[in-house]
Amino acid sequence: MKKTLAFLCALLLMLGSIPALGLAEGESTPKYVFLFIGDGMGNPQVTATQYYEGSVANPEAVMPVAAQLSFTDFESLGMVTTYDASSFCPDSASTATSMASGEKTLSGVLNYNVDLSETFKLVTEYAKEAGKKIGVVSSVSVDHATPAAYYAKAQSRNLYYDIAVQGLTGTTVDFLAGGGLLQPTGKEKDKEDAMEIAKQNGWTIANTNEDIRALTATDSRVLAISPVLQESQALVYEIDRVRRVAEGEDILSLADFVTAGIKVLDNENGFFMMCEGGKIDWSCHANDAATSIHETIALSDAVQVALDFAAEHPEDTLIIVTADHETGGMTIGFATTAYETHFNYLTNQKTSYVAFDSVIAALRDSGASFEDALAEIELYYGLTTTPEKDLTLTEAELASLSAAYALSMTAKDQRVIGDAEALLYGGYEPLSMAVSHIINNKAGLSFTSYAHTGLQVPVYARGVGADAFAGLYDNTDIFTKTMDVLALAY
Amino acid sequence: MKKTLAFLCALLLMLGSIPALGLAEGESTPKYVFLFIGDGMGNPQVTATQYYEGSVANPEAVMPVAAQLSFTDFESLGMVTTYDASSFCPDSASTATSMASGEKTLSGVLNYNVDLSETFKLVTEYAKEAGKKIGVVSSVSVDHATPAAYYAKAQSRNLYYDIAVQGLTGTTVDFLAGGGLLQPTGKEKDKEDAMEIAKQNGWTIANTNEDIRALTATDSRVLAISPVLQESQALVYEIDRVRRVAEGEDILSLADFVTAGIKVLDNENGFFMMCEGGKIDWSCHANDAATSIHETIALSDAVQVALDFAAEHPEDTLIIVTADHETGGMTIGFATTAYETHFNYLTNQKTSYVAFDSVIAALRDSGASFEDALAEIELYYGLTTTPEKDLTLTEAELASLSAAYALSMTAKDQRVIGDAEALLYGGYEPLSMAVSHIINNKAGLSFTSYAHTGLQVPVYARGVGADAFAGLYDNTDIFTKTMDVLALAY
Repeated sequence: MKKTLAFLCALLLMLGSIPALGLAEGESTPKYVFLFIGDGMGNPQVTATQYYEGSVANPEAVMPVAAQLSFTDFESLGMVTTYDASSFCPDSASTATSMASGEKTLSGVLNYNVDLSETFKLVTEYAKEAGKKIGVVSSVSVDHATPAAYYAKAQSRNLYYDIAVQGLTGTTVDFLAGGGLLQPTGKEKDKEDAMEIAKQNGWTIANTNEDIRALTATDSRVLAISPVLQESQALVYEIDRVRRVAEGEDILSLADFVTAGIKVLDNENGFFMMCEGGKIDWSCHANDAATSIHETIALSDAVQVALDFAAEHPEDTLIIVTADHETGGMTIGFATTAYETHFNYLTNQKTSYVAFDSVIAALRDSGASFEDALAEIELYYGLTTTPEKDLTLTEAELASLSAAYALSMTAKDQRVIGDAEALLYGGYEPLSMAVSHIINNKAGLSFTSYAHTGLQVPVYARGVGADAFAGLYDNTDIFTKTMDVLALAY
Repeated sequence: MKKTLAFLCALLLMLGSIPALGLAEGESTPKYVFLFIGDGMGNPQVTATQYYEGSVANPEAVMPVAAQLSFTDFESLGMVTTYDASSFCPDSASTATSMASGEKTLSGVLNYNVDLSETFKLVTEYAKEAGKKIGVVSSVSVDHATPAAYYAKAQSRNLYYDIAVQGLTGTTVDFLAGGGLLQPTGKEKDKEDAMEIAKQNGWTIANTNEDIRALTATDSRVLAISPVLQESQALVYEIDRVRRVAEGEDILSLADFVTAGIKVLDNENGFFMMCEGGKIDWSCHANDAATSIHETIALSDAVQVALDFAAEHPEDTLIIVTADHETGGMTIGFATTAYETHFNYLTNQKTSYVAFDSVIAALRDSGASFEDALAEIELYYGLTTTPEKDLTLTEAELASLSAAYALSMTAKDQRVIGDAEALLYGGYEPLSMAVSHIINNKAGLSFTSYAHTGLQVPVYARGVGADAFAGLYDNTDIFTKTMDVLALAY
């Protein structure tokens, strides 16, 4: 009897598409695909953000409370291996290549094979051929490795001008948005301005908040660049954006660019939008836990825009949230705090390390004393010499700040950086790093590296075809699963 | 048409059990359930073991190769949050309580609620009432927190005698095996010998390799304790077992106890067996990466025994492999190695930190020189002062070994341990810790803590009902999902 039922049911399933049962076979294909990539967003980054938000929202709770981010309750969970052809600890170019093209390549390479002799075809190219519009959004410069992998092929990720020109003269992308261009006139500043090339190729350029907010569906391709940028042509760190918005500035968020992208891209054939949270990685390189948590919140907010869109198109939308690799070896637990964590301490941090670097530069320029530096540290991080506070500095911490202060007050070209300093500061501004390490560790967080690590990263999926993204697989299967869900041949 | 098909199919599914389609609804219940718990086995521990095995098996490979462990290709993958009622960084008692009882409790508490006023009912008790035999296996003492959670209720995990007596006088467990008892005659050694209590309660005691290997199905309950134990009544670390077996000793592995357990427990109503790899945790507390990798391999080998059994009972078996929490904040990546890893370096390590502690004790007793210590370090870890080798010690590493040597050569009660030493050695033998940190870091691995961390941990499931264990959920749902799969009311 059981076998007969099974056979009959299997036969019926083959006959038609039955999304109500959540079955992969015969499921319809999504019209709209959102792929969010948190650069450097491993499980530790996501979990730390959940625990931070849970702790901050429940200050009186006796027991730990974990919050859900917009995507942590998605019905489908996967984990992917991220190693590339060079290393178990890969880079963003090779890993984005794997996700965009389904192929492994060397660190630093975009959509070329390992001997740099052939290029790969991208999921965005297939999707474009199938009639979809293509969006590429990033919180860092739009020619950076992760966004570039979705429209360009380059033997080196550092060929920023070539990458930008490929995107702007090519036909793949309809909406390119977020940060700016790193080398708009080439590395030697001797090339035709990429913005002019964009105009010649019919791109609409939106680079005021008003224009970006006013974007609508159009036949033109749209290049939307935030007028307010921070380091390396990237959007402002969320922790700084929130502070500056509270002070009256108008600064677009990553979510705002997803909102704009949906307006530009929506059409009867649907779209594929890749959106990168690129500064989770950058802040974890710099071991700045609070800033990385706020970047993860910014990505979660951007995913929420897609969720709101999906609520209006529930039968047609697939949302995937993943990462290219973990950065920094972040963990939730430190030797001296042992079983304790104090996520609430991180609310005292009001600045990214990048913004604080500017504070340090001003201290250096003015010949400020260590006491002056401590006053700024208390203002921006809450770390204090006042006794018996949560964030009271210990003697050992003060000693580490003093050593870092001495090095940070030295002109950059006159600093002596030995192995010990390299291990302590990883090439960053010493005082910023010392401050970050102290507040991280007091909160019960720590990092092991200033580079990417070899950890597996999570995949969260919701909507049409989400089932396919469950399980443990390699990052190249992000491509194959997306293609399969879209019923595209490759 | 689609809706009609869906309705018809749903109706058919409700009518009968159709395991061939892998559907959760109406799926049959497993007769045999194996639950493997890698204590402290977070994603980093599993991934490091995959990369170690892949690297060692492919020494000539140009590109990184990841190996599969016995369970890493299971079709169902989940991730679980592990925090308990005390902390985001929980302990093994509270987390095992969550998995055994479906309830959160305080760190250190076994199957009592947070105000210690009520006890919880265990999955093993429900399964026993449903007619299944129950096995509890551990590589550490069988009265330790994780195994204890599957048969005992105690306001403190440290009530070892009370826990053992509960297990031996209770009716839940039919096969209790692995390590020994920590306090067989009580903390004050003034109680009736638990082994006598076992005999009075009809337990068959097997404590020779021959007797354990000869175990068969029996109406008696069986207490099987390895005659060869290491520290704290635990089985010998796999890295030491392999070395000692190569030298001619006969030492049972964790897998041997699963083999014995299957023989004892198999019966027409099936069984539930919990098997803990308890020393993954212990080695990660001590930041001993190579030893933790070999412990994970030992757990993988134990799972393989269950897989071999499942191959003979494919329609009746469910295998779940998970962890209670991550330990040590292990990551694959270190500041100085950056994007490089050298997993092959770890093959030079031939000893656990515990076995090397004995070597250090002998050095101390004989008043050995630093050069004598370096010779032992080279013998057991391959770290060398010979120039230009893979594991050549740098000046900084030699300095750290020298400082640790000085402290390790001091009588334990005369050591001065300040904050700096606590951070460096975490309360362990200084020279063992210094050696472990050096070889870890040269291999590109690192830890942030000597305690448990707050990371989520993976769940791998295969067989009947495995689908239920996919996704992201809380560790209490290990209990509810197991109960649901077994169709047990709670």
